[in-house]
Amino acid sequence: MTPVKVFGPAQSTNVARVLLCLEEVGAEYEVVNVDFTVMEHKSPEHLKRNPFGQIPAFQDGDLYLFESRAIGKYILRKYKTREADLLREGNLREAAMVDVWTEVETHQYNSAISPIVYECIINPAMRGIPTNQKVVDESAEKLKKVLEVYEARLSQSTYLAGDFVSFADLNHFPYTFYFMGTPYASLFDSYPHVKAWWERLMARPSVKKLAAVMAPQGA
Amino acid sequence: MTPVKVFGPAQSTNVARVLLCLEEVGAEYEVVNVDFTVMEHKSPEHLKRNPFGQIPAFQDGDLYLFESRAIGKYILRKYKTREADLLREGNLREAAMVDVWTEVETHQYNSAISPIVYECIINPAMRGIPTNQKVVDESAEKLKKVLEVYEARLSQSTYLAGDFVSFADLNHFPYTFYFMGTPYASLFDSYPHVKAWWERLMARPSVKKLAAVMAPQGA
Repeated sequence: MTPVKVFGPAQSTNVARVLLCLEEVGAEYEVVNVDFTVMEHKSPEHLKRNPFGQIPAFQDGDLYLFESRAIGKYILRKYKTREADLLREGNLREAAMVDVWTEVETHQYNSAISPIVYECIINPAMRGIPTNQKVVDESAEKLKKVLEVYEARLSQSTYLAGDFVSFADLNHFPYTFYFMGTPYASLFDSYPHVKAWWERLMARPSVKKLAAVMAPQGA
Repeated sequence: MTPVKVFGPAQSTNVARVLLCLEEVGAEYEVVNVDFTVMEHKSPEHLKRNPFGQIPAFQDGDLYLFESRAIGKYILRKYKTREADLLREGNLREAAMVDVWTEVETHQYNSAISPIVYECIINPAMRGIPTNQKVVDESAEKLKKVLEVYEARLSQSTYLAGDFVSFADLNHFPYTFYFMGTPYASLFDSYPHVKAWWERLMARPSVKKLAAVMAPQGA
């Protein structure tokens, strides 16, 4: 069987989300680079894979998909086993809780944590743009409020959707991983249940493998 | 059977998304107002329903949910019939296409169209804040690029995920409905397949019913 293909580098948070799902289910895959320096993401070939000219894109035989969260769900459905059932779509209540906390990641968590990663790492290191401290400070305040809600939730259950790891938890990995390389990492220390949850995630073989690819120098 | 409860007014786009799903499947429901003028959304009672103090919140017996897209999926799964199968989770490829275009709505379409609705309607009419024309102009340019992709897609299939209406289409209703009341509505005229798709959606009984509730004066 031809392995599925993921277009885009593992260092991209949205690509990492897809690769993490593939690692969780143990699927064979191939990562195909998309060269941004020559605008390959806007080439006719890539636009056929992703009409918005973004990464990731995904190919499984004659099926092309884009949008990392949609690709992730496809992978988790296709390779679902009794042991690896990260969407829980067979159980109405569990599936609903996975969806709730997946949406929370998108609309609450990500919008608070991603500006800190952009301002502290991506802008200065990759774009030559200095850190905008006002954005960082506002986002840190926003993140604290979000983490308060997470602390309450994770004092009731081991993982976000319940006492089982799910797609909702996995989605937090890429940005949180980079966030832990910023001067704001210690912010998590005030939320012991959140910190323990993050350490549980970091101990997963899939996450360890991805972490090594995303920061090969151990950053 | 006690009808499910939706907390928040139908005029809110995120509440409307939930109500539209309920109308599509013909479920019985009750809308419970949340009085923002007395900060009821931040009351301990509402925070139990939605820990972020936002609307909508949703109750089905002893199950409480929040995040409108997650609530919508719960409703569409619970009341699924052969006729009303708007997630297509029984078909790997169809479910993937529903997910792709649901994510596109969240990350591409909504982020372009919602600032226009805020600046042209919500800010001036409800918050006494004048329209920021720069934001409107930038968003209109962004929306045109998104609509180009939609035009190509909808010239290949009747609806976004394929030749069947799905959750992906429904999600476009609340903001597009208000957008059609702004001076920028004619922007859709340049995209005939998008316009025909929108008219197909507006002809649905569920959409007509919601539209009447959202703009009782026919605005």
